Amino acid sequence: MNYCTRCGAKVVLRIPEGDSHLRHVCPQCGEIHYLNPKLVIGCVAEWDGRVLLCRRAIEPRYGLWTLPAGFMENGESTAQAAMRETVEEACARVGIERLFALVSIPHISQVHLFYRARLLDADFGVGEESLETTLFEEREIPWERLAFRSVAFCLEAYFRDRRAGAFGFHESTLPPP
Amino acid sequence: MNYCTRCGAKVVLRIPEGDSHLRHVCPQCGEIHYLNPKLVIGCVAEWDGRVLLCRRAIEPRYGLWTLPAGFMENGESTAQAAMRETVEEACARVGIERLFALVSIPHISQVHLFYRARLLDADFGVGEESLETTLFEEREIPWERLAFRSVAFCLEAYFRDRRAGAFGFHESTLPPP
Repeated sequence: MNYCTRCGAKVVLRIPEGDSHLRHVCPQCGEIHYLNPKLVIGCVAEWDGRVLLCRRAIEPRYGLWTLPAGFMENGESTAQAAMRETVEEACARVGIERLFALVSIPHISQVHLFYRARLLDADFGVGEESLETTLFEEREIPWERLAFRSVAFCLEAYFRDRRAGAFGFHESTLPPP
Repeated sequence: MNYCTRCGAKVVLRIPEGDSHLRHVCPQCGEIHYLNPKLVIGCVAEWDGRVLLCRRAIEPRYGLWTLPAGFMENGESTAQAAMRETVEEACARVGIERLFALVSIPHISQVHLFYRARLLDADFGVGEESLETTLFEEREIPWERLAFRSVAFCLEAYFRDRRAGAFGFHESTLPPP
């Protein structure tokens, strides 16, 4: 961040009074610019025992497989974000069930949330950000070609819970790679 | 948002190619500025069956009671955010247990997360953003003077679960008041 979004002046790094963190502060209008972690939200959507994955048509991790997921937008709920991302990436309509996993990734200031979900019909497709979308049996999951560690964490916990007959809630914090 | 944080030019509102949302886009350097929801993270910290609440010394809701909670910072995990906020607002050290509640508040683009926690000792105090901090029995909770609906949702679910003998995970989306 170089310039103030409010007045356009050059910002400086300073700890505001009563604060304990360095912030981008505008010396002209006084605005304090806070930078906060972003939420990435998606789902593990099942149809007939199989799980929906998308192969990425965008960077990062072009060509690798992921759960339908993306940045939460202003003005929506976390469940709405999961539904919207699944429409956008796989043209698929899902019923959202329980929150299943939370993954903190401090070094990139992201928090990933994954819901369990069921596809409402088998009529899915390939969104603009996907090369292909496929339903995978557990034994078919492309573990070596998954795009993100959070997705691997979520899918491993998902199949472990499914084999055990009960879904829990799983949390993890990922260190830098 | 009026000016580009990268180059200082005036931004325009436009739907970028391949996107479906209006964004603040810089016509000079091409930067797309995304606005995303913020995470507010706190905890229900118990000591000897009582729950720690803080009376706010800042706006909004000056003078009303809340759980220790605040905006997640870049570079930390969700559990670390809950611990840090509890130190800042109540000078209290907690052991973080399970995630207990998630509250989406779309009209202000916030997501609130509350963990269950236990105070590690009874040596807490009053942080800069608090007027006072107190341990409350369930029957003493100042329900009519709580600062936020998300806190009321969380505390109601907390005591309901505690009476039932098992803590679950609770999710809610709050409509505009």
